[in-house]
Amino acid sequence: MSKEPGTNLESAMQMLIKTFHKYSGKEGDKYTLSRGELRELLTEELGNYLGSAQDKDAVEKVMNDLDSNNDGEVDFTEFIILMGALTVACNDFFQDVKKDDKPGEEEKKE
Amino acid sequence: MSKEPGTNLESAMQMLIKTFHKYSGKEGDKYTLSRGELRELLTEELGNYLGSAQDKDAVEKVMNDLDSNNDGEVDFTEFIILMGALTVACNDFFQDVKKDDKPGEEEKKE
Repeated sequence: MSKEPGTNLESAMQMLIKTFHKYSGKEGDKYTLSRGELRELLTEELGNYLGSAQDKDAVEKVMNDLDSNNDGEVDFTEFIILMGALTVACNDFFQDVKKDDKPGEEEKKE
Repeated sequence: MSKEPGTNLESAMQMLIKTFHKYSGKEGDKYTLSRGELRELLTEELGNYLGSAQDKDAVEKVMNDLDSNNDGEVDFTEFIILMGALTVACNDFFQDVKKDDKPGEEEKKE
């Protein structure tokens, strides 16, 4: 049906790629996020979700969790794993809220 | 800096969640994609990336890869793993194309 260039999913993929490179290109390796770049990305792009990202410990924790080879850099795959985990957490949250709603309420919409 | 409700990353997360539920709610379990719902999602939302998704074998293959517990349903986490893999593949493709560009060309943009 909707076969025009930009469906929602395609835009979502493009936004993830664009946002990563907006920060990864600032210093050092153009294709990975340094600690500073990751902090900037989390603070500016996910400040509403991760209020605590402004606190340095939180960024250190995320960096240590993501940076499996310990080189202080986060590559695109590691970034996508983070975003996936956040999206699943976010979905679970809203799903649980909806399950507590009056049942049947949502079913009518097709 | 940009602390208004919708940054690009936040929109991307919302689009992934919205798109999944747009299809998962159509039949059976509201919170999982059946084979039919997955086919519809892939065809309508990723037709430009996955031209071959319209062919039934491709959808079967994706479904079998994703549906680890073999119940014929794809849940949100499995969907996010697929989208992550597609986004990484997409990023690798463009990164490789860029690496072949004249060097320095992209560096100037901040």
